[in-house]
Amino acid sequence: MESKKKGILERLDAGEVVVGDGGYVMQLERRGYVKAGHWTPEAAVEHPEAVRQLHREFLRAGADVMQTFTFYCSEDKLELSGNVKTISGAQINDAACNMAREVADEGGALVAGGVSQTPCYVQSHNETEVKAIFKKQMDDFLKKDIDFLVVEYFEYVEEAVWAVEVLKTSGKTVAATLCIAPQGDRHRVPPGECAVRLVKAGADIVGINCQLDPMTCVRTVKLMKEGLEKAGLKAHLMIQPLGFHTPECNLGGYVSLPEYPFALETRAMTRWDIHKYAREAYNAGIRYIGGCCGFEPYHIRAIAEELAAERGFLPPASEKHGLWGAALEMHTKPWVRARARREYWENLLPASGRPKCPSMATPANDGLTEN
Amino acid sequence: MESKKKGILERLDAGEVVVGDGGYVMQLERRGYVKAGHWTPEAAVEHPEAVRQLHREFLRAGADVMQTFTFYCSEDKLELSGNVKTISGAQINDAACNMAREVADEGGALVAGGVSQTPCYVQSHNETEVKAIFKKQMDDFLKKDIDFLVVEYFEYVEEAVWAVEVLKTSGKTVAATLCIAPQGDRHRVPPGECAVRLVKAGADIVGINCQLDPMTCVRTVKLMKEGLEKAGLKAHLMIQPLGFHTPECNLGGYVSLPEYPFALETRAMTRWDIHKYAREAYNAGIRYIGGCCGFEPYHIRAIAEELAAERGFLPPASEKHGLWGAALEMHTKPWVRARARREYWENLLPASGRPKCPSMATPANDGLTEN
Amino acid sequence: MESKKKGILERLDAGEVVVGDGGYVMQLERRGYVKAGHWTPEAAVEHPEAVRQLHREFLRAGADVMQTFTFYCSEDKLELSGNVKTISGAQINDAACNMAREVADEGGALVAGGVSQTPCYVQSHNETEVKAIFKKQMDDFLKKDIDFLVVEYFEYVEEAVWAVEVLKTSGKTVAATLCIAPQGDRHRVPPGECAVRLVKAGADIVGINCQLDPMTCVRTVKLMKEGLEKAGLKAHLMIQPLGFHTPECNLGGYVSLPEYPFALETRAMTRWDIHKYAREAYNAGIRYIGGCCGFEPYHIRAIAEELAAERGFLPPASEKHGLWGAALEMHTKPWVRARARREYWENLLPASGRPKCPSMATPANDGLTEN
Amino acid sequence: MESKKKGILERLDAGEVVVGDGGYVMQLERRGYVKAGHWTPEAAVEHPEAVRQLHREFLRAGADVMQTFTFYCSEDKLELSGNVKTISGAQINDAACNMAREVADEGGALVAGGVSQTPCYVQSHNETEVKAIFKKQMDDFLKKDIDFLVVEYFEYVEEAVWAVEVLKTSGKTVAATLCIAPQGDRHRVPPGECAVRLVKAGADIVGINCQLDPMTCVRTVKLMKEGLEKAGLKAHLMIQPLGFHTPECNLGGYVSLPEYPFALETRAMTRWDIHKYAREAYNAGIRYIGGCCGFEPYHIRAIAEELAAERGFLPPASEKHGLWGAALEMHTKPWVRARARREYWENLLPASGRPKCPSMATPANDGLTEN
Repeated sequence: MESKKKGILERLDAGEVVVGDGGYVMQLERRGYVKAGHWTPEAAVEHPEAVRQLHREFLRAGADVMQTFTFYCSEDKLELSGNVKTISGAQINDAACNMAREVADEGGALVAGGVSQTPCYVQSHNETEVKAIFKKQMDDFLKKDIDFLVVEYFEYVEEAVWAVEVLKTSGKTVAATLCIAPQGDRHRVPPGECAVRLVKAGADIVGINCQLDPMTCVRTVKLMKEGLEKAGLKAHLMIQPLGFHTPECNLGGYVSLPEYPFALETRAMTRWDIHKYAREAYNAGIRYIGGCCGFEPYHIRAIAEELAAERGFLPPASEKHGLWGAALEMHTKPWVRARARREYWENLLPASGRPKCPSMATPANDGLTEN
Repeated sequence: MESKKKGILERLDAGEVVVGDGGYVMQLERRGYVKAGHWTPEAAVEHPEAVRQLHREFLRAGADVMQTFTFYCSEDKLELSGNVKTISGAQINDAACNMAREVADEGGALVAGGVSQTPCYVQSHNETEVKAIFKKQMDDFLKKDIDFLVVEYFEYVEEAVWAVEVLKTSGKTVAATLCIAPQGDRHRVPPGECAVRLVKAGADIVGINCQLDPMTCVRTVKLMKEGLEKAGLKAHLMIQPLGFHTPECNLGGYVSLPEYPFALETRAMTRWDIHKYAREAYNAGIRYIGGCCGFEPYHIRAIAEELAAERGFLPPASEKHGLWGAALEMHTKPWVRARARREYWENLLPASGRPKCPSMATPANDGLTEN
Repeated sequence: MESKKKGILERLDAGEVVVGDGGYVMQLERRGYVKAGHWTPEAAVEHPEAVRQLHREFLRAGADVMQTFTFYCSEDKLELSGNVKTISGAQINDAACNMAREVADEGGALVAGGVSQTPCYVQSHNETEVKAIFKKQMDDFLKKDIDFLVVEYFEYVEEAVWAVEVLKTSGKTVAATLCIAPQGDRHRVPPGECAVRLVKAGADIVGINCQLDPMTCVRTVKLMKEGLEKAGLKAHLMIQPLGFHTPECNLGGYVSLPEYPFALETRAMTRWDIHKYAREAYNAGIRYIGGCCGFEPYHIRAIAEELAAERGFLPPASEKHGLWGAALEMHTKPWVRARARREYWENLLPASGRPKCPSMATPANDGLTEN
Repeated sequence: MESKKKGILERLDAGEVVVGDGGYVMQLERRGYVKAGHWTPEAAVEHPEAVRQLHREFLRAGADVMQTFTFYCSEDKLELSGNVKTISGAQINDAACNMAREVADEGGALVAGGVSQTPCYVQSHNETEVKAIFKKQMDDFLKKDIDFLVVEYFEYVEEAVWAVEVLKTSGKTVAATLCIAPQGDRHRVPPGECAVRLVKAGADIVGINCQLDPMTCVRTVKLMKEGLEKAGLKAHLMIQPLGFHTPECNLGGYVSLPEYPFALETRAMTRWDIHKYAREAYNAGIRYIGGCCGFEPYHIRAIAEELAAERGFLPPASEKHGLWGAALEMHTKPWVRARARREYWENLLPASGRPKCPSMATPANDGLTEN
């Protein structure tokens, strides 16, 4: 059945908007299945129904891609976390692929197997060792029915390039997203140069994920695009940013915020913030648009709703959502009915209800001196 | 099997802390299954796996009670919403009871069937008609295996009294919570008098749910307690407040906030706010402590963790949560490791990341003139 | 010449609006002539030109009364401050009366001699001793040409009553203002009762000064008015509040704020805030309307401008002020010209430019436990 | 007598810290003598006592320079303002010089005659005409006893260069400060290049005044310094920034803020903010350190107090100021006494008391498109 689905490159080459899914680990932490600080995906084996349900919600919200729930699933990382002794990375990868496929096939979504940065890189900086880790996880994926591969959450373009080089040996399409700032990766390699290196290594799609807020990530992807254009290279663009406001962050990303990871609530994006982001990303020429940490199903739905005209359809979950608050028209209170319109929500400046809290924090580390 | 479980009154009479569950409709709205503005529970029939999963997350977080997902499930309300033509209230009640029971039995939880205020009351103010609506829903519940009944989300104590009177005919334990402010119900009947009326009508447990933030709701329950003491009456106390900060709200509740219902993110409680709330509620003598709109599974877990010593155990989901951020000790960044301690999170004043937004809004309606 | 001026009671009895002056000590602290923490008025002798200039600015802004710069000028207080050994209270009183008279006569203003609370009251609580202190200062005033007497900045109505009793022996009109909250004086005597006691003691004018923001002070004066009405008593009403926003303060007043006294800048009222206050005070039936700490000359001008129609004239300083920003019409930048209108300034919510600061503080002391 | 005073260059060449004075027009607007929107200095003739008093306060606060109150005193600007028909620019210049000299000689201060940008430049862009205006004002100054000349508040370096070229013909020392952002002047000439041009034109001292907050202005002066160093040029550095927080401003300066000019209160610097600024400016190698709009006498005193060790003395007004709040030690309330220490004030984050206001505004114009 999935063989009839158009592949990711077919879709992007045709100019379609591909909606990505949202963030798994942070949402599953709140649901009780992932341990913050570890962020490892053993829930794929321990509580598959919980992971499957979140996949389903993203699908229903309009996601065209189910990323396998395999974040930080390299053996070295799992070992470090150490909270699960009896489950291997291979088991997790296997279970995660099954679930992603199962849900993807409930709709027209594709399955993407994801690899992320390794502790090994920072510790050993040994290309052979690091590549072996990626190879191992890729081999797990290739035993399963996946559509393409994603290299994501890399702070150093060098390690991401190694990952792309390994994954391209599979013959599959490879997308590569870094979690970097407009100032560059942690070694200050500028986004434009990062993009060039990734494409030269074989990436078909490049972009940004996590660590900074949507508008900042759009800026970084634009810099990647410019870099590619200058180099005469071509690639599709992809973005999966945080669902949080992080105006005071630099290279250190949201990890440097005092609120990370247990008090980020007040920074959460509204669905209306996401409308603006989706439009901005689209206008920047990005066609693979999703989210990362902080993106819940309704945020993904907001992307799909903002771009409904371009895509030609609304997602299933929109049956439970009046566009721009339209369903408030039937509210019993007249002042709530008055909110059933786009201008209201577009212009609202939401109050925090926290008058003793500041609106900006001082990041613990600006990323300039890396620890 | 459930026959061996201790009933709600047995638990409360024994001085146990009963942890309630969180908010269903607002969370399921974000997950894509409930329509804001309607807030009706047809998802119990349409998408049972989604409702079941949320039940399970609350159970895992420590909830001792599964409330049936039957909010606003009176026939008159369903008709008004009108978005579901082919599903009857009876079907929803049936499906909701099945799911609540199924998940409750995965742990030691009880099932509570809930009725809420009716459009009929405000429109007709006809006791016979309103009571007939409650009777119909109660009859649905009594066909199923439920442990006790909850009267919740009532703005007028008079209607709540009618509901209690009907539900008491079942012979079941009845808990009754109003969604009112310290100033009283919408007719300005003070909380103390409300409590007296509810207990005289037969309520075994009284308290507050929804509409205002936790600390304000604790204040209101204290006023109820004082009223009961003055009247020489006894009842158990219960609280299920909002998971949002609403310092500027009065009688109108959070519905009067400009952010309601689509931009409440920045008001969301952190888990550490919930710790303070759980302690405050406990100190006020309240022993049935849960949440309403805005309470996600991790908020319920925070109640269970704060009161772990009193209860003698941690909930299942705490296996994925280092107490007071302890799991951050293994983080790669030293400044994040420094956050693995109670003082840090207790004293943090989280920034909104939204410098162009105010910290307090002007409610659309202060509740003084009711529309 | 001043004999031809109408007295304060003549003006108030005729229904005229009397504009008070602003705060001397805090403004002269910023100008370099008063020591914060001491707040004593030795500048009247040391730097008369500075005091005279501030008097003149208030006169020019529309003030109808020049209060003598004799705050905290009781001998016991001067001794405690101890920073001036060679200047006696009598010398200060003498110089202050001279200057107030000199400037008052440059316009049509009256001179009011002011006494304020004494350290002696709190320490000894001895009526004879405290009254002797007031008597001494009054005798200083009576040697000079003053029009009426003001009892101001009293935290305890009892001490204020003693002051009124002493000052009434002069035969002069006596105005009495407490620096208390709507909850009452520091012994919790409610404002209504305070007003009754003061009027019974002989006060012709009663009201509130300092310690809390304008709108709160208007509320307190309203309570005084209600108290007098209930008691069948009559007196004119007066108000001279802070020029700062203090929404989180209770009985402790602004002294309890962490920002007191050296970081109150961000709380300062704009001239437009003062317009609202002047209107609110007028609507509450208050006819002697001025300011205390934080009121600079332009704030006094704003009172005079808001009530220009009622008074029938604008103050001299309005020749340097386009009403409601009218003079911006000639600005070179079009977006500044767009601000030359009332709606703009009335609706502006000014930003602090301080994103790392909260909007509300936690008072050091809520006044409930007095130290 | 003044002939014995060391000149400005002697002082700077000797490595002394020269404290500048604060802002005249905005402070005199609040005192009732200057009309906002016009900002012309006719008060020098109309109300000399008011101008003299402000000079005296700055002197007392530690200022080593009295700038003549001649801002916007070119004939073309006076004509445009049009609110004074009978006073000529020459009269104002004459009176302003007299007063500045009179007060300067009460201490050891120098007198600086100041010229500022002209409407003529923007309108005609005619070098001859613009230079004639500067020449006329300079000739006024040269009839009086002034020590040096200041070119200040120029948005375009080109016009400032013309002014320097004219003023250098006097043989006097010339200081030149632009009101520009780190991004450059309104034509985007970078600060480094601006500095080079000014020095090449003959300026002995260069720097920044007005339009942006202190820390931003320090950054801009640093860029000027780097530009001079690269060009192998030498000049003394000077800074006189706003006394307001303006984090969201770019090229447009504070005029672009919605709060300009009548609601800037909440942005006002505390004395402790000024301590930080003075230290930062000193550390950047700047030795002529003063203020512009928003700088009141106590802000200038804070500069002098922060740099008291470097200068070897405290200013006269410090006799009325306990360093770092020391005078609070004698306060009656223990929680206020606890504030009599440096750490307290250095770390305080002052609250605005305005929970319905944002902390950052959206500038009306970012300066990118100039009107």
